[in-house]
Amino acid sequence: MSDSTYTPPKVWTWDQESGGRFAKINRPVSGATHDKALPVGEHPLQLYSLATPNGVKVTVMLEELLAAGHADAEYDAWTIDIGEGDQFGSGFVAVNPNSKIPALVDRSTTPETHLFESGSILVHLAEKFGAFLPESGSARTETFNWLFWQMGSAPFLGGGFGHFYAYAPEKYEYPINRYTMEVKRQLDVLDKQLGRSAFLAGDDYTIADIANWPWYGGLVLGQLYDAGEFLQVEEYENLRRWAETIRARPAVERGRIVNKTFGDENRQLRERHSAADIDAVLKRN
Amino acid sequence: MSDSTYTPPKVWTWDQESGGRFAKINRPVSGATHDKALPVGEHPLQLYSLATPNGVKVTVMLEELLAAGHADAEYDAWTIDIGEGDQFGSGFVAVNPNSKIPALVDRSTTPETHLFESGSILVHLAEKFGAFLPESGSARTETFNWLFWQMGSAPFLGGGFGHFYAYAPEKYEYPINRYTMEVKRQLDVLDKQLGRSAFLAGDDYTIADIANWPWYGGLVLGQLYDAGEFLQVEEYENLRRWAETIRARPAVERGRIVNKTFGDENRQLRERHSAADIDAVLKRN
Repeated sequence: MSDSTYTPPKVWTWDQESGGRFAKINRPVSGATHDKALPVGEHPLQLYSLATPNGVKVTVMLEELLAAGHADAEYDAWTIDIGEGDQFGSGFVAVNPNSKIPALVDRSTTPETHLFESGSILVHLAEKFGAFLPESGSARTETFNWLFWQMGSAPFLGGGFGHFYAYAPEKYEYPINRYTMEVKRQLDVLDKQLGRSAFLAGDDYTIADIANWPWYGGLVLGQLYDAGEFLQVEEYENLRRWAETIRARPAVERGRIVNKTFGDENRQLRERHSAADIDAVLKRN
Repeated sequence: MSDSTYTPPKVWTWDQESGGRFAKINRPVSGATHDKALPVGEHPLQLYSLATPNGVKVTVMLEELLAAGHADAEYDAWTIDIGEGDQFGSGFVAVNPNSKIPALVDRSTTPETHLFESGSILVHLAEKFGAFLPESGSARTETFNWLFWQMGSAPFLGGGFGHFYAYAPEKYEYPINRYTMEVKRQLDVLDKQLGRSAFLAGDDYTIADIANWPWYGGLVLGQLYDAGEFLQVEEYENLRRWAETIRARPAVERGRIVNKTFGDENRQLRERHSAADIDAVLKRN
């Protein structure tokens, strides 16, 4: 395909053959494609997710809350297999009309609370338990600054760089250059910030760190897209220090396992209903 | 350029000639490029912005607060000319190390509060004035759901679709198809939600609407990228109703003018220091 001769039509139409690796799960319409109820466990919090970076944010948050002594943060985690189209089931769509993981149902309220978007879930849990989100002052402001920064930036990393570098059906030079430049700029932004303070919003670990770590920590630790050398991630020394510090937290090690159905078989856990489910995985080695 | 023969190098390097319309303002590093202090006016709130969709969110919010009687929401608005590199001045970078508009300084606190990311600014203003963000319950949750939805979705509209459809140096078929499909899906998600309720988070107008309107309202009203026919935006009837309802709000009409230095010359206002500055523009017609 020579892109330079392309002229867009007046009206776009859907070619169901295009789209690369994710062609089957990307659609130009929303809504349910089939009837399927969501499973419900015994805990007040029901998580429907997958251990992608956006999913890991929430399982790490829940494990951090449990580690901090918030017993009411006990949860059931169910895998939404996006390759199989689980996100288009009627039950899931009723919770998240956007058909993306993660989604959370908080059954402790009447009526139950439906949450989608990892940022919204993190804010809800932080407010519910009074943890990892400072209540006032510049620490609160900085937490929201860097939390929203992640939300607006990571689409250029995941949906942009990751797609064109790793997943698109062909290697297209212009998009790869475009998104690589932006991702390197983002890494530099974080690296400079983490040269000024231990964590993104200051001295304390917050939901801003929890949101950013699976994406930018994963990237600098060489766990995303096999792109460490291409991006020269070792240049970002403050970011690496932060990424390693967070990776060493027991709750992070636990959260990364939940809803993991790919990668290292010894670190997979399709459903999580109690701490013992994770303990059993950690014993495998 | 035939993209199909491209093989990415082992290590990416910066070609300063590439990048299309925004080549001069996209860089793979962050930080200030020159010394330049920010101007400061008399009000507690100092906004440094531009009337792009992300900038308009904040000026609409400020005008809505003023219209609702919150006199302490008076503000000075200064234009950051991103084509001239103002976002790389040392004063701006000190407020927003990410070098993107909008940025806000709240001088009513000691020390002054630095805010960046439109979502963080909206949350700060909503909490400061107790407006447009419900304090509890499902209305609050839904507001955050749709606020964060906008943050994670619009990069596919602006940085994805808008870039490849309108701004890239050539028309590339694969990225245009990829982002068009996603934008149409997003429009459908909003349209279905707005078939269930008057506003995104329920019966009331919130910061979720304020955040989404400049992007998705602008698109469905034919004001972004000249893409109305291509995307068949007239299909999304609930979204259009919502977009028109919000466009008709006086505070929205006022907010859209602030920091506008492009488009209709009769609707431009480089700096805003009082209501009279906007009144004078509205009188022009």
